[in-house]
Amino acid sequence: MSLPSKTVSELCEHVGGRLFGNGSLAINRVGSLDSAGEGEIAYIEDEKLFAAASESKASCLITPIDTNLNVPCRIEAKNPKLAFALIAEVLHPQQQRSPEVHHTAVISPAAKIGADVFIGAFVCVGEDSVIGDRTQIRAGAKIGDDVRVGSDSVIHPNVFLEDGVTIGSRVLLHAGVVVGADGFGYVRGEMGYHKFPQIDTVIIEDDVELGANTCVDRAALGRTRIGRGTKIDNMVHVGHNCDIGERVVIAAQTGISGSVTIEDDCVIGGQVGFGDHIRVLSGAVIGSKAGILPGKIVRPGVWWGIPIQPLDEYKRLNAHISRLPRVRQELKELTERVKELERRLHDEE
Amino acid sequence: MSLPSKTVSELCEHVGGRLFGNGSLAINRVGSLDSAGEGEIAYIEDEKLFAAASESKASCLITPIDTNLNVPCRIEAKNPKLAFALIAEVLHPQQQRSPEVHHTAVISPAAKIGADVFIGAFVCVGEDSVIGDRTQIRAGAKIGDDVRVGSDSVIHPNVFLEDGVTIGSRVLLHAGVVVGADGFGYVRGEMGYHKFPQIDTVIIEDDVELGANTCVDRAALGRTRIGRGTKIDNMVHVGHNCDIGERVVIAAQTGISGSVTIEDDCVIGGQVGFGDHIRVLSGAVIGSKAGILPGKIVRPGVWWGIPIQPLDEYKRLNAHISRLPRVRQELKELTERVKELERRLHDEE
Amino acid sequence: MSLPSKTVSELCEHVGGRLFGNGSLAINRVGSLDSAGEGEIAYIEDEKLFAAASESKASCLITPIDTNLNVPCRIEAKNPKLAFALIAEVLHPQQQRSPEVHHTAVISPAAKIGADVFIGAFVCVGEDSVIGDRTQIRAGAKIGDDVRVGSDSVIHPNVFLEDGVTIGSRVLLHAGVVVGADGFGYVRGEMGYHKFPQIDTVIIEDDVELGANTCVDRAALGRTRIGRGTKIDNMVHVGHNCDIGERVVIAAQTGISGSVTIEDDCVIGGQVGFGDHIRVLSGAVIGSKAGILPGKIVRPGVWWGIPIQPLDEYKRLNAHISRLPRVRQELKELTERVKELERRLHDEE
Repeated sequence: MSLPSKTVSELCEHVGGRLFGNGSLAINRVGSLDSAGEGEIAYIEDEKLFAAASESKASCLITPIDTNLNVPCRIEAKNPKLAFALIAEVLHPQQQRSPEVHHTAVISPAAKIGADVFIGAFVCVGEDSVIGDRTQIRAGAKIGDDVRVGSDSVIHPNVFLEDGVTIGSRVLLHAGVVVGADGFGYVRGEMGYHKFPQIDTVIIEDDVELGANTCVDRAALGRTRIGRGTKIDNMVHVGHNCDIGERVVIAAQTGISGSVTIEDDCVIGGQVGFGDHIRVLSGAVIGSKAGILPGKIVRPGVWWGIPIQPLDEYKRLNAHISRLPRVRQELKELTERVKELERRLHDEE
Repeated sequence: MSLPSKTVSELCEHVGGRLFGNGSLAINRVGSLDSAGEGEIAYIEDEKLFAAASESKASCLITPIDTNLNVPCRIEAKNPKLAFALIAEVLHPQQQRSPEVHHTAVISPAAKIGADVFIGAFVCVGEDSVIGDRTQIRAGAKIGDDVRVGSDSVIHPNVFLEDGVTIGSRVLLHAGVVVGADGFGYVRGEMGYHKFPQIDTVIIEDDVELGANTCVDRAALGRTRIGRGTKIDNMVHVGHNCDIGERVVIAAQTGISGSVTIEDDCVIGGQVGFGDHIRVLSGAVIGSKAGILPGKIVRPGVWWGIPIQPLDEYKRLNAHISRLPRVRQELKELTERVKELERRLHDEE
Repeated sequence: MSLPSKTVSELCEHVGGRLFGNGSLAINRVGSLDSAGEGEIAYIEDEKLFAAASESKASCLITPIDTNLNVPCRIEAKNPKLAFALIAEVLHPQQQRSPEVHHTAVISPAAKIGADVFIGAFVCVGEDSVIGDRTQIRAGAKIGDDVRVGSDSVIHPNVFLEDGVTIGSRVLLHAGVVVGADGFGYVRGEMGYHKFPQIDTVIIEDDVELGANTCVDRAALGRTRIGRGTKIDNMVHVGHNCDIGERVVIAAQTGISGSVTIEDDCVIGGQVGFGDHIRVLSGAVIGSKAGILPGKIVRPGVWWGIPIQPLDEYKRLNAHISRLPRVRQELKELTERVKELERRLHDEE
């Protein structure tokens, strides 16, 4: 695949940066500082890397503003890492497979397939499902009935979208994602468990990304929602009736029980566990491996531990725990001193 | 899909309840208290919701016995949530796809397919496998050789059943489930690791449900078993040679190492970790995120923490940890007081 | 499937053991001590099992050297469990499916398929991909473009290998494995998150095994590597740019963030969480459920807890925590004694 090529000037203008050096150089790939070579652009954020930067073989570097760095060609940007990401979007656009419906795909005649859609081998699209323009459904993905997928989305191989779910535009669902399987709810009867009805749906809004093998369960009654621009890593579990807001980031293997609300702009680490009916208020940050009890309201700020505490408190308590051997020693010594005092007072009397 | 419709009287009789109001009303859907409307039935368990209940637009409500609630139509039941689940089973029966073997499916001539079976697109069924009556095997599921699946089960898309495993009747395997992959066991030799033989099988009994992307490994020697009526959530790992009893509930992302026994009627939270050769006695409840050391015997009761402790003890120790700053302060103050006592005694002498 | 049969003498020679009894007996299966019968071989390592061993119906037993055990036929070996695994490799060789390219498979004409390859139903192999001799690609696996798979590997059903990744020889990828999905990296802009470029690749070396539904992400820039002979359990997450060495063992549901290095011969428990940019030095052992902070260097030895500590220290602190109620009691009593001393001194004055 030949990559698009841009001049340094074009890229500089794209990110609103300031150019130092030859703007007509052609750039066709982003790279890391140490491995980038001719035709490649890299970035640095940190003064510690200036020495490495001056030895980089990259054709162009992106640096912070007012960097004092003697390299032949560079772009100054307020946020070099962001500029690098924006330039990568230009040089490495998402692969747009040529429109095609593979002859092995099984598409219901009652499905509506948009313009310039790619549908790979062994894909199923069920009755009354709607696939938006330019969306790519890769090999082996299974789309049920009454599913809506927006435009410019990519459904990677072996994804399963259960009947009735809605997926927005520019959504990326990585391989093995399952959207709309039954939520986990039962009522105990005399003979065992009866399923609590899991009959409603899932809505995944625009610009969401779900990592490989992540599962989002359908709502019992109502809906499970993943808000616009939210990014979720691999093997995350989202239970029934969760409401995840916009621009939330959730790292790998986190598990979210039923009816949890996470408001906009939260950041959740990996392997976090949520009890049910938790509400995380906008702007909260929850550290990896934290555990949160059911029903808890999590306020803005940084949280850590099992059960979660404000990070400062968590650190303070951890320091106290580390000092426990000393506390015990001090208590022992103090007991001896008290014993000695008692002895002396007794002798006096 | 048109839903079945029942009268309030019929539903009331089905759950052994007591009817107040017009029994001839038609009901065709369950709903939540706040969103249910005409033709829908909702439930309440909690007095706190009586105000909301009296404003509900549901055609019928299920309430506890002797509820003093002025609504046009209601059913009193001993366990309203259970009655609601039983009514949902009637109004929202599991989808029974019309019997069909999709023309793309690859079925071994030596497989035995029961009556009224649904087999979707791109399914494989291997040699000598047996599929029971009315079982549904959805698109992309792969069934190996010598696999036995009972009747009325649903194998969702992209499930994989390895050669030789046995699945009961009325079993639900959600999308991406893997049953019968090799267990994880090696012996270190001079040059690296040799696989400990993983050559035996898995038995999943009747009425079991496994959540999306859950994995149950085959036994090394012997069998891995999931007992009748057990319900397991998404992305749970069940290692080789585990013996999970009947009516056990296991929440998402829990990991169970090899040769663990969990007896009947246990409840296991999410993200719990089991070392190998643990035995959990019938009736034990293990809280989410708990960790259990290998070889441990877990007695009935509620357990929590890493490593697990009885919940009461866990709470007590956690309270002690929270008080650590105060303990330290008290110790400091007491040390000052002892110093003062020593000074005064010294002055006296 | 008829199993190969060997004489006890042949097996004894294969493992360099010492034979006691009739070497001409035919053995065709390994078994466990209590269930093995005629034609089967079992092993014991532990004196505690000698009583059970003497009642075993196995045709042959593998025992430690100089075992005083009166059974008709046994093999003494330095490491009986290893000998058992080596014998299992002979008696239960990995199933070699007859060479075939299933007529439903979609193979790019530009792919290169080696000799004696098995390709199952509904498999895709993309452009310029290369599949080595005797490799088995089972039903529903999807191989992208420019993928390299070595010889004698087994790619189980519904695995997905993204474009450009490299898989070695004698590799086992269990069902649902995803190799090469995008890593998880974003840069926050004014309007939300932009993807940090995830454009590089994954290399999985020879003799690696990945458990069911495990995910290994592609590198942002550079490569993600799993070294030769490394064994990884089910549902493990390996983030972008990780470098996992040779003969590393990683148990189920462990999550490894981006840019983590794990050197050769480490052992990692289940449900461990790694922050990014950690380096685990060769020979370290990390207990299940441990959590490791970003950037940490983990030295050889046994580590435990969140955050990790040397196992001894972890145990010592845990013991201190268990003693907290007593510490509190002692502090209370001591305070009373000091109060009494103060009173008496006050009275004296």
